[in-house]
Amino acid sequence: MPTYTPPLKDLEFVLHDVLKISESDIPGYADLDADFTGAILDEAGKIARDVLAPLNVVGDTQGCTLENGVVRTPDGFKQAFDMMRDGGWTGLGADPEYGGQGMPYLLHTAVGELFVSANLAFNMYQGLTMGAYEAIRAHASDALKDKFLPKMVSCEWTGTMNLTEPHCGTDLGLLRTKAEPQDDGSFKITGTKIFISAGEHDLSENIIHLVLAKIPGGPEGVRGISLFIVPKFIVNDDGSLGARNGVACGNLEEKMGIHGNSTCVMNFDGSTGYLVGEEHKGLRAMFTMMNAARLGVGLQGHAQASVAYQNAAEYARERLQGRAVTGTQNPDGPADPLIVHPDVRRTLMDQKAFVEGARAFLLWGAMLLDDGDLNGNKDSEGLLSLMTPVIKGFLTDKGFDCTVQAQQIYGGHGYIEETGASQFVRDARITMIYEGANGVQALDLVGRKLALDGGKYVMAFFEMVKGFIKENENDAALKADFLDPLKAASKDMQAAAMFFMQAGMKDPNAALAGSSDFMHLFGHVVLGLMWARMAKAAQAGIDSGVSDTKFCENKLATGRYYMKRLLPETALRLARINSGAEPVMGLAAEDF
Amino acid sequence: MPTYTPPLKDLEFVLHDVLKISESDIPGYADLDADFTGAILDEAGKIARDVLAPLNVVGDTQGCTLENGVVRTPDGFKQAFDMMRDGGWTGLGADPEYGGQGMPYLLHTAVGELFVSANLAFNMYQGLTMGAYEAIRAHASDALKDKFLPKMVSCEWTGTMNLTEPHCGTDLGLLRTKAEPQDDGSFKITGTKIFISAGEHDLSENIIHLVLAKIPGGPEGVRGISLFIVPKFIVNDDGSLGARNGVACGNLEEKMGIHGNSTCVMNFDGSTGYLVGEEHKGLRAMFTMMNAARLGVGLQGHAQASVAYQNAAEYARERLQGRAVTGTQNPDGPADPLIVHPDVRRTLMDQKAFVEGARAFLLWGAMLLDDGDLNGNKDSEGLLSLMTPVIKGFLTDKGFDCTVQAQQIYGGHGYIEETGASQFVRDARITMIYEGANGVQALDLVGRKLALDGGKYVMAFFEMVKGFIKENENDAALKADFLDPLKAASKDMQAAAMFFMQAGMKDPNAALAGSSDFMHLFGHVVLGLMWARMAKAAQAGIDSGVSDTKFCENKLATGRYYMKRLLPETALRLARINSGAEPVMGLAAEDF
Repeated sequence: MPTYTPPLKDLEFVLHDVLKISESDIPGYADLDADFTGAILDEAGKIARDVLAPLNVVGDTQGCTLENGVVRTPDGFKQAFDMMRDGGWTGLGADPEYGGQGMPYLLHTAVGELFVSANLAFNMYQGLTMGAYEAIRAHASDALKDKFLPKMVSCEWTGTMNLTEPHCGTDLGLLRTKAEPQDDGSFKITGTKIFISAGEHDLSENIIHLVLAKIPGGPEGVRGISLFIVPKFIVNDDGSLGARNGVACGNLEEKMGIHGNSTCVMNFDGSTGYLVGEEHKGLRAMFTMMNAARLGVGLQGHAQASVAYQNAAEYARERLQGRAVTGTQNPDGPADPLIVHPDVRRTLMDQKAFVEGARAFLLWGAMLLDDGDLNGNKDSEGLLSLMTPVIKGFLTDKGFDCTVQAQQIYGGHGYIEETGASQFVRDARITMIYEGANGVQALDLVGRKLALDGGKYVMAFFEMVKGFIKENENDAALKADFLDPLKAASKDMQAAAMFFMQAGMKDPNAALAGSSDFMHLFGHVVLGLMWARMAKAAQAGIDSGVSDTKFCENKLATGRYYMKRLLPETALRLARINSGAEPVMGLAAEDF
Repeated sequence: MPTYTPPLKDLEFVLHDVLKISESDIPGYADLDADFTGAILDEAGKIARDVLAPLNVVGDTQGCTLENGVVRTPDGFKQAFDMMRDGGWTGLGADPEYGGQGMPYLLHTAVGELFVSANLAFNMYQGLTMGAYEAIRAHASDALKDKFLPKMVSCEWTGTMNLTEPHCGTDLGLLRTKAEPQDDGSFKITGTKIFISAGEHDLSENIIHLVLAKIPGGPEGVRGISLFIVPKFIVNDDGSLGARNGVACGNLEEKMGIHGNSTCVMNFDGSTGYLVGEEHKGLRAMFTMMNAARLGVGLQGHAQASVAYQNAAEYARERLQGRAVTGTQNPDGPADPLIVHPDVRRTLMDQKAFVEGARAFLLWGAMLLDDGDLNGNKDSEGLLSLMTPVIKGFLTDKGFDCTVQAQQIYGGHGYIEETGASQFVRDARITMIYEGANGVQALDLVGRKLALDGGKYVMAFFEMVKGFIKENENDAALKADFLDPLKAASKDMQAAAMFFMQAGMKDPNAALAGSSDFMHLFGHVVLGLMWARMAKAAQAGIDSGVSDTKFCENKLATGRYYMKRLLPETALRLARINSGAEPVMGLAAEDF
């Protein structure tokens, strides 16, 4: 069975040595010194390792069951959820006004990595609740906020997002769920939603559904969508639970993975709902939720890669098979460990270089979010908005690839469910799909975000890369191994952006044909920047003489691997982008 | 539920327009005219489409069950197997001396694609039988051949390969299964084998296990391995079945996919076995089986990609979601079909360009095998031996990627088992692992095959590419779109081979660190060559005025996509190879 070792040292390195968070001017960050973050992460890591990780395979094997409308989660989920709630972990990043701990999003992200690595399916119950919390907090009336948020922050009540319908996923303009206004100001919601994660379960007293629906007579398409709160049990004015609302789980989906999370068909049958924000402005409110969720899904891609990698590395150290081509390494054993073989080492390095780079990217992204939220810094907000599809799309594409690489190391044993390597692959697969399939992320990036405010944020990103290179170009070791490759990759990205501007003006297909390639190109440049920053911090650690020298040297070696073997992918991506629309759009639909 | 449409036209195009098989001088090929192959493929296609494909999801859902030592296959498998047997399909490529149809391997391969696309798990029962048949035919005594082969050709008895033990997969030198000589010339086999596909089932009267074991007192390691026939039921001298042998299925493995095939733990408890070939020479005999099996597994990777792609394309044409960015395409519908979106189109083109290129590669490979076998052409045999790890490793890596891309097109629906998209991914995943994990294929390619006979075969490959380019360089359209990119890719491959020769002399790790990259580089150059040859044939078809012009134009467009967007990956692979051992081997084992 897989185990989980919280990567505390690496998290601390990124937070304090690379991002230097407690020196930043973001409100609340001054408190985030190494002692404080160390204590929190250590505690969260223990829960992840000892409580959540052992339940991961239980969730996969047992799955959820539906009987007479009641959904049961796998054995142990309820107790673990209670423990998370009792420990105050559910409201870590939430507003103290509603009972949260008021910690910055950055800390929520660092802790989140640990929980999600340990048990993705379990953590979704809580993650979706926080997404629903954000949307209600940002858009609902004070009365609704006061009524629902405190219990959601504590996860006594959990939350869901109800967008998808059988005929409508990405294209929300097609949705048919109806919301009819009632005399008391509430609405009657009728329709069917599918793929509703945590739509019904036995972990909480109440479930607060956020539902997109159309009020009859409103505008066509997405401009006629409104957002509603539909609680499973009506909440009385005194906060006590009243009658069961007309919403029920009609079916559980059989899925490829995340079996521990209940994926429900939800039937709304004249159920009572409360409008969140303004009529017909539901999409905007939903986007609040989706943007946060997309960052969360990017984290999932990384977190699954991280735990899969750990276990594969352990297996490669323990499994004896064959001899090193350069001479026996384990003369007392019947064979050498797998890890002596260069190709095994290569795939482990691929995984390690991605996982550590992605960790820095995610924490930096969280810092930008805090800078936007808490400092009101619009530039940080804009840059994060630009990079959100990259975090979601690139990190989940690559995260999934890493789980496949990790599984491969086990040989035949990786295909047998017993080792758990298959579960990481099957679970990670969903992250490329939900919260906007990765093709939709690429479309969002190239079709919308790139040109936002006249391309201001992508220009700012280029300036940031340039600035970092200029600032450090006198450091000879950094220059050859890190800055020069970063500069080359950044030039590829600039050339791609230029191509989109010129070709995309004439033919939008010319830009969109290369959208996924650009998402990956962008992701690689960010990871290149992260590795250059980490290398600088690691070198400084070595020079200081107080850091763990071995750790810093390994960081440099892993970074060099990234720059030499993974970052050069930018050239291939650029070549594809430059080939434009013709190769992609050359066939008629019926010719496939 | 997925469906399957046999790609008959494309198979015929490769056989007759590209490979021009009936004009070749390989014995038996003169009979393979379009009428003949058309009739066979049409008939096989019907069985694949109407009988095997509908059972694919049944196999996945029901799996196999073990009760009191008896393994039951999923509903319908037995009837379908009987039908395959009755139709003579099981012995298509087998020797008429043993009741086979005596068809060339080429036709076996073309027909095999259809069966494997329709139902991978089902086809393994028959495929493994043919592998065991090959090993027995090449190495066993006439008495054993006469006793076992006729019933194996008809699949009245099926076959298995028993190599792996719990502690030993790739490294067969570690195996512990013992074979003790008996006075009557037979052996008593004792040991446990795992991951035995089709090890026990209810499809045939008898199961003929080929088992690797060590005769006590023999040499250490792989030089002390012998190969044995161990039948489930002892076969009497008159051919009737006698007593049950001491071999039994102890457990069925829970796997990620291919649930319709029984993957068994096999316990040999003093079971009676018969030596195949010489004592201690078992590995050589097993390699006969494995080489054929590796070509078969490459075919599986391609075949799963092919059927997954077909279904994804159909879904993309039918599912309405969003509007084309260049203007509404389906004004009467609520939305446009997915296929209007450039990024959806891109992933379909990726799949189509791979699938059609791989099909040509596999059929060309089969032709080389026939030329070696039937004509005794050592150059063809050597070239195929060099490319066997590429066929196995590259085609299954890419084939799996295609199934993931196909699944992605369905959005959330692809993650639900109901659509069948997940099954293609889960089933295809095994092809990267079994018959030598793909890292082992890369090691075989770079560590052994590349330098075979002084590098004679890779040089011959380069000459072949050069020859094709020279021969056609006056064709302006072919030159710019196909020959120039092929030349650039081939140069990358030559540079990589040069690097291995120079760096590998000093440090084997420097070559092996790039072994997987070389396997992919090689695969891309072969597919580039295949596409150039297909483009030439398609252009000739258009010029002739008698071929299906639309088909030929689509072939050219798909080929241009491959050359423009996929083939340039060779440069990235070369860059990685040139980075040598240092980035890959930089960390100590304990630092992962």
